Amino acid sequence: MIKKINHIAIAVPDLQAAIHQYETTLGGKVSPIIEEGEHGVMLAFVELDNSKIELLHPLSDDSPIAKFLEKNPHGGIHHICYEVNDIMAAKEHLEREGAKILGDGTPKIGAHGKRVLFLHPKDFNGCLIELEEI
Amino acid sequence: MIKKINHIAIAVPDLQAAIHQYETTLGGKVSPIIEEGEHGVMLAFVELDNSKIELLHPLSDDSPIAKFLEKNPHGGIHHICYEVNDIMAAKEHLEREGAKILGDGTPKIGAHGKRVLFLHPKDFNGCLIELEEI
Repeated sequence: MIKKINHIAIAVPDLQAAIHQYETTLGGKVSPIIEEGEHGVMLAFVELDNSKIELLHPLSDDSPIAKFLEKNPHGGIHHICYEVNDIMAAKEHLEREGAKILGDGTPKIGAHGKRVLFLHPKDFNGCLIELEEI
Repeated sequence: MIKKINHIAIAVPDLQAAIHQYETTLGGKVSPIIEEGEHGVMLAFVELDNSKIELLHPLSDDSPIAKFLEKNPHGGIHHICYEVNDIMAAKEHLEREGAKILGDGTPKIGAHGKRVLFLHPKDFNGCLIELEEI
């Protein structure tokens, strides 16, 4: 089912500072900032040869990323996103396996316009998992 | 400098259970268990098409992974490892940029027999970074 890592998301308290750090200190290639108003976040991708890091910052105080940063003021790794071929088949497989899908259990349109599901970190070794249909 | 994600390490409270979950619930391909006695850990890799997840479990109570699991009993994402071509050039660049390298600042032989450096999560948005020479 899980095929590739699409991205690893890191919530950051200062997006411009994080972009600068990944570009200069770590010598990475970073995309322009993308505003995802509907999802309450702004982000930039660190583009690596085999995957990408999503630097995530909230647009408003009621965003889940704002709440995450309240608990983790320095920032922190927020989730890992894996690609799947068929999100409905993934959902059915996960339900058969007894995994709990976040929200009402149906795929949503994620920040990149693809169908996504989230799995609770408590059920997956403290790691919030996003599955994205490719 | 940073080229590829080599792996993302997740500390897990029960390695067999985590392997079973990644194989069955998530439909991933998992390697046999590798014991790294010198580094105080046992691990297994979830092998994805573009990178891998390292499921990490301590071999003894004084391992840093044991301490991490005391704070995070469900487990959690422990670090991200990036590949670099030249670890000494990376070290010099990081020092010029004012980044603090963990330990005495010199590369060590990591769990996979390659030279590695670690960067403190406080300085990198709450994310422990490993650089591995490839």
